[in-house]
Amino acid sequence: MADTDPRVSAPLLTESRDAAGVARLTMNRPEAFNALSERLLDELAAAFARLAADDTVRVVVLAGAGKAFCAGHDLREMRAEPSHDYYRRLFDRCTRMMMAIQKMPQPVIARVHGIATAAGCQLVAMCDLAVAADDARFAVSGVNLGLFCSTPGVALSRNLSRKQAMEMLLTGDMIDAATACARGLVNRVVAPAQLDEEVAKLAASICAKPAAAVAAGKGLFYRQLEMGIEAAYQLAGQTMACNMMDDSALEGVQAFIDKRPPSWRAS
Amino acid sequence: MADTDPRVSAPLLTESRDAAGVARLTMNRPEAFNALSERLLDELAAAFARLAADDTVRVVVLAGAGKAFCAGHDLREMRAEPSHDYYRRLFDRCTRMMMAIQKMPQPVIARVHGIATAAGCQLVAMCDLAVAADDARFAVSGVNLGLFCSTPGVALSRNLSRKQAMEMLLTGDMIDAATACARGLVNRVVAPAQLDEEVAKLAASICAKPAAAVAAGKGLFYRQLEMGIEAAYQLAGQTMACNMMDDSALEGVQAFIDKRPPSWRAS
Amino acid sequence: MADTDPRVSAPLLTESRDAAGVARLTMNRPEAFNALSERLLDELAAAFARLAADDTVRVVVLAGAGKAFCAGHDLREMRAEPSHDYYRRLFDRCTRMMMAIQKMPQPVIARVHGIATAAGCQLVAMCDLAVAADDARFAVSGVNLGLFCSTPGVALSRNLSRKQAMEMLLTGDMIDAATACARGLVNRVVAPAQLDEEVAKLAASICAKPAAAVAAGKGLFYRQLEMGIEAAYQLAGQTMACNMMDDSALEGVQAFIDKRPPSWRAS
Repeated sequence: MADTDPRVSAPLLTESRDAAGVARLTMNRPEAFNALSERLLDELAAAFARLAADDTVRVVVLAGAGKAFCAGHDLREMRAEPSHDYYRRLFDRCTRMMMAIQKMPQPVIARVHGIATAAGCQLVAMCDLAVAADDARFAVSGVNLGLFCSTPGVALSRNLSRKQAMEMLLTGDMIDAATACARGLVNRVVAPAQLDEEVAKLAASICAKPAAAVAAGKGLFYRQLEMGIEAAYQLAGQTMACNMMDDSALEGVQAFIDKRPPSWRAS
Repeated sequence: MADTDPRVSAPLLTESRDAAGVARLTMNRPEAFNALSERLLDELAAAFARLAADDTVRVVVLAGAGKAFCAGHDLREMRAEPSHDYYRRLFDRCTRMMMAIQKMPQPVIARVHGIATAAGCQLVAMCDLAVAADDARFAVSGVNLGLFCSTPGVALSRNLSRKQAMEMLLTGDMIDAATACARGLVNRVVAPAQLDEEVAKLAASICAKPAAAVAAGKGLFYRQLEMGIEAAYQLAGQTMACNMMDDSALEGVQAFIDKRPPSWRAS
Repeated sequence: MADTDPRVSAPLLTESRDAAGVARLTMNRPEAFNALSERLLDELAAAFARLAADDTVRVVVLAGAGKAFCAGHDLREMRAEPSHDYYRRLFDRCTRMMMAIQKMPQPVIARVHGIATAAGCQLVAMCDLAVAADDARFAVSGVNLGLFCSTPGVALSRNLSRKQAMEMLLTGDMIDAATACARGLVNRVVAPAQLDEEVAKLAASICAKPAAAVAAGKGLFYRQLEMGIEAAYQLAGQTMACNMMDDSALEGVQAFIDKRPPSWRAS
């Protein structure tokens, strides 16, 4: 479990906040293209847990320092402990971190530049939304080393159509940002200089909505995706009836009827 | 349950038929952008039940009178009875109407112009096919009022990729018709002046096929989507074997072999 | 069960191999647009079983001789035995052949030119990858004869979005190769003169990866698609931990760390 990061004293993950409730997590191992070492996995998991419980946080932006978004697992670290048990624990840990993104109440936006490969591509796929610089590139490249990206494939195949996902998994080839957008892996593609502004716009749009509605809606969205349509509708109807009884929805609908902006307490 | 429609004596839903078996339902609350009041929900449900049982009807076209296709629930009516029980019943009722589209034997084509928002966008997503004017726009905009479009999201997420659906649900933003088409929410986009002609072409293509094959195929299509692939194939094989024993299929296949048009009784 | 092929002595399916492990199966009923007679279905099933068990085979390419890829079932043969039991057995047999593509350890690439219709379109949809000539066309055209393409629809609806699949199934209309690519039915479209070269490139990319990783990855891919995301991740994590313990993955990762190409035994 040697940590190969020469800057052990530097934080592997930095966090910033703005007044509107946008928290930005920046993976900070630029010399390793933000590879997901065990320590970085743990810090990401801890950060998502902390932010999930913090109701002043409305949106999380996930970014990478340096030239890349994230290059996947830390291969040096992985190779240093070649045991089946270790790999099982490692992938379980990674999965729990990835699932935390989907399970937290606030939307998480991937801010992607440079490369997003293997588990780095999986991170993009697991985020609720993703905005990419037009020079960003995406691959599930493990197969090039003889390690098929099976766990990234779980997320990828829930974003792209199956033949498109299969081609990426079998060839390990990069796709560019425009292709990623056309196929559903990212929502928006902009020039690198506009990347932060576009992420900020998307985040601001979400911050303008009541937190309770967003949280209930996000949670329902992923649950209903795994249900048959009748069960999905039943749960969605319950969720929406509860949502409608919120003060913010009652006020929002009344404001619409009155043709005025809603007057919501800071939520 | 105040009905806000000033024209209470005008039908909320009009129906026309042509000789070929195309029934057109037109939501007729133009002054309310065809908002789905309880009465309109009930009339739609009743119309779908009636048409489903009528074997002279081969295709149903769903349209909206005035400037919009449909702007979703009637918010004035909803706001007037702020009770959890009422909302549960309302969304259940809406879901039953939406599911009736999928369950009826005849294909239903949404003819979309203007806006299709919230449950109006859900209507488009639930129809088997959709043709849109190029100036049509689509949104699940409830979140702008603090009411996340959870039930529309059930339908939307079964048409679009998940990040594209999630972005619409979280931002409430409009997408245009070309985007809706590229993402799978509508089948075809044409100039407003060609909208009826394009819908008629699609309907005529379906009317030219035997009704029994269309009904069995539509029913199977939605059932198998919710199954694993092995079970899906088993059910599809049964459906197709039964279909092949129909007189119309036997005649259709024979006609193909004989290089002549099939001679089907009016079905 | 009359065989309508006048060239009964010619093989219905030819096979060629190259040194790299690419096996090419060519459906060889050009005068019948490679219609899937019972004999051809059986020969395809036998060939897939044989290739699946042959670890010198790394990739399978499925092609059609003559002007078309495949026009679906042999209608003359089907019409000659109009019995429900016969059709049940026929579709079961076809399904087993189709599922063999998904179940075999090696990736199967459809090489598509001319038309791919009905069960021929299903073949394309069932292959792991597909490359098409730009003049190829695709349809599930059974409905034109009164026979809704229910079994092809199982595969089609797992490649395209549901409204796009439904339109093809209800109208029987052709889509061109560019549309098929945009919708996810094929991976790549090239000029007819480049078709073999493009297929060869894709095959070579897969042959360059260790066979065990590809086989485990392909198998996992289809299994996890039918699971909820948590169960999918659990199985994928197990698969990946096993994969990582392979000599080829350990060497591949070490080679990456050492900045050298991996030294894999011919696999």
